[in-house]
Amino acid sequence: MKGDRTRQSIVERAVNLASTDGLEGLTIGRLADDLEMSKSGLFAHFGSKEELQLATIEEAKQRFIDEVFRPVLKVERGYPRLLALCRSWIDYLRRGVFPGGCFFAAASFEFDGRPGPVRDAIGRAMFEWIGALEKAIRMAKEAGHLDPRVDPAQIAFELNALFFGANFASQLWRDPRALDRAEKAVEARLESVRIKPSHTRSGARRKIA
Amino acid sequence: MKGDRTRQSIVERAVNLASTDGLEGLTIGRLADDLEMSKSGLFAHFGSKEELQLATIEEAKQRFIDEVFRPVLKVERGYPRLLALCRSWIDYLRRGVFPGGCFFAAASFEFDGRPGPVRDAIGRAMFEWIGALEKAIRMAKEAGHLDPRVDPAQIAFELNALFFGANFASQLWRDPRALDRAEKAVEARLESVRIKPSHTRSGARRKIA
Repeated sequence: MKGDRTRQSIVERAVNLASTDGLEGLTIGRLADDLEMSKSGLFAHFGSKEELQLATIEEAKQRFIDEVFRPVLKVERGYPRLLALCRSWIDYLRRGVFPGGCFFAAASFEFDGRPGPVRDAIGRAMFEWIGALEKAIRMAKEAGHLDPRVDPAQIAFELNALFFGANFASQLWRDPRALDRAEKAVEARLESVRIKPSHTRSGARRKIA
Repeated sequence: MKGDRTRQSIVERAVNLASTDGLEGLTIGRLADDLEMSKSGLFAHFGSKEELQLATIEEAKQRFIDEVFRPVLKVERGYPRLLALCRSWIDYLRRGVFPGGCFFAAASFEFDGRPGPVRDAIGRAMFEWIGALEKAIRMAKEAGHLDPRVDPAQIAFELNALFFGANFASQLWRDPRALDRAEKAVEARLESVRIKPSHTRSGARRKIA
């Protein structure tokens, strides 16, 4: 039991460290120093750096699901939930859930050129996230809330790009306007394909901007 | 003279290495191995890892200017040049100018949490690029080619986000559709604020999507 608690506190600390310094900067020596543990004590929980990196990604995923995804499931399906999911992502960045910005944006750019299990795990996590975003778009479309010509994969790509753009500008420049710009762009993009309940017909005929 | 050529071949190699493995992965030992030079020989050109990283950013900037920016200066000012600049960025990714995707996207995400001269240099390079993009938008607006209500900083933010989104998906997933999606989104976004020469008035009145 105590071992589980220790393991949990190690990965929580590892997630925070990796979000600022990168997953590759996450050495067992550095983490041991940081937690005031011995390296051998830490090795008892994680046999290798790679194992630690994979556990860190798993922990970050749980935190992301709890903070971004779960709160939105209670929102009405269709356009309201899609909009809430997008706002939830921006709010997650605003609240600083990870001290170094979005863990997955950072990890994606860090590992895209390093083949192996760590990159595969990040690729899967991002695939699941974009899949969830795409599903929310598809559900809004099926509910008749979006232009029927909308391509969910295209919109999911664009929304995620805006999220990453917000992460970039708010992290690299500490630009306080970045999140507002992303929010504005995301809402305008969704609005451009939305069919308003009051005048469905003219909405459906609008050009997809 | 020979020294200059050696220095140049070192930084060229460093740019390529850094674009896949990151600027932090760029150790003098690794680069020396790669170039079949002695570490002391390499130290004669760069006194420290930081100096090497800064020279690498400078070299990457020159390559970016030559490959993305310069070819577009011959295109007619206004909307045509703005569109050409955006297409030039996507084409730069498609051609694989840097083997690991966009050097600056990777470096931005890698260093945003590591204060110091390297982060500052990346921040400045990205600031110059977004500034150039913003200037192209402003020139198109001043030429009467864009809706006068357009906020150049907002559009520059969105375009850059789409570029980074393309880099993300094409690098992490090797997704061949990512560049086409970015191109489609960029062109639709520009089109949504464009005033077509033939019917300026109705164009000006259109809602900014």
